[in-house]
Amino acid sequence: MSNQLTVKMTLDAWNAQVNNTNKLLNELTDEQLQNEVAPNRNRGVYLLGHLAAVNDKMLPLLGLGEQSFAHLNETFLSKPDKSVAEIPTASELRKCWNESSASLTKHFNALSTDDFFAKHTSVSAEDFAKEPHRNRLNVIISRTNHLAYHLGQLSFLKK
Amino acid sequence: MSNQLTVKMTLDAWNAQVNNTNKLLNELTDEQLQNEVAPNRNRGVYLLGHLAAVNDKMLPLLGLGEQSFAHLNETFLSKPDKSVAEIPTASELRKCWNESSASLTKHFNALSTDDFFAKHTSVSAEDFAKEPHRNRLNVIISRTNHLAYHLGQLSFLKK
Repeated sequence: MSNQLTVKMTLDAWNAQVNNTNKLLNELTDEQLQNEVAPNRNRGVYLLGHLAAVNDKMLPLLGLGEQSFAHLNETFLSKPDKSVAEIPTASELRKCWNESSASLTKHFNALSTDDFFAKHTSVSAEDFAKEPHRNRLNVIISRTNHLAYHLGQLSFLKK
Repeated sequence: MSNQLTVKMTLDAWNAQVNNTNKLLNELTDEQLQNEVAPNRNRGVYLLGHLAAVNDKMLPLLGLGEQSFAHLNETFLSKPDKSVAEIPTASELRKCWNESSASLTKHFNALSTDDFFAKHTSVSAEDFAKEPHRNRLNVIISRTNHLAYHLGQLSFLKK
């Protein structure tokens, strides 16, 4: 019962950040996303691609499937902004963000409470036995904070 | 057992954000904190005062005690930045942030696992019976995301 509660609290927090991000993205034009969020900082499109790639990478990390947008990894995870000459359009990145969020939601809805307390794929069974907090739920908690961190930055694109 | 795990995961996430904030604050001078984090946005000192006030308000919200820095509420919670002529110095605000964080840590360490699943003070016993997720832990989860959001913005003060 209280595990169920914990899963609800964690997913509520995740969904709140995703919804806030969607709300902001709906208010921003593709042109605004081309701007840097602050002088000499990442562009909106870079952060959007970064968040989509991080979402997408959660699938294998949580043992829920393969990445759908692995072509984003190099540009948005391995390299800093403005180091790759040609990057996907804002419109394409919005699609990657939306689809990766929807895919996570679909998978989360299909998991049982116990599934959330099971290990993620980057911890060995041996280490997990000693450190049972290294579970799927913990990945979601940390990605929620990661999303909030960049959402605070993306909010500066609003007029 | 798994409730204990949940408390650990939630406090680990909180502490990680607090530690990241402390690390950033240690790298910033009082002069840098006087700058806006982005053009026409909040100043560093305002965000610092805001985070200290939000920390401090968690004490009564969690039923752990009275506020210590209620004099911050008006300037940093009710009003936007640059609407109050004289605000506390960066040095004083650093002290409020440090003391409020330390106070929360002290209180969290004294709580039992069940205490974290008990209701916070802004929900009635009647509503809590129907919505048991409105507990102390949920407040900490939401404040962790709030901190991450503003930390992403404060990070722009670094050179």
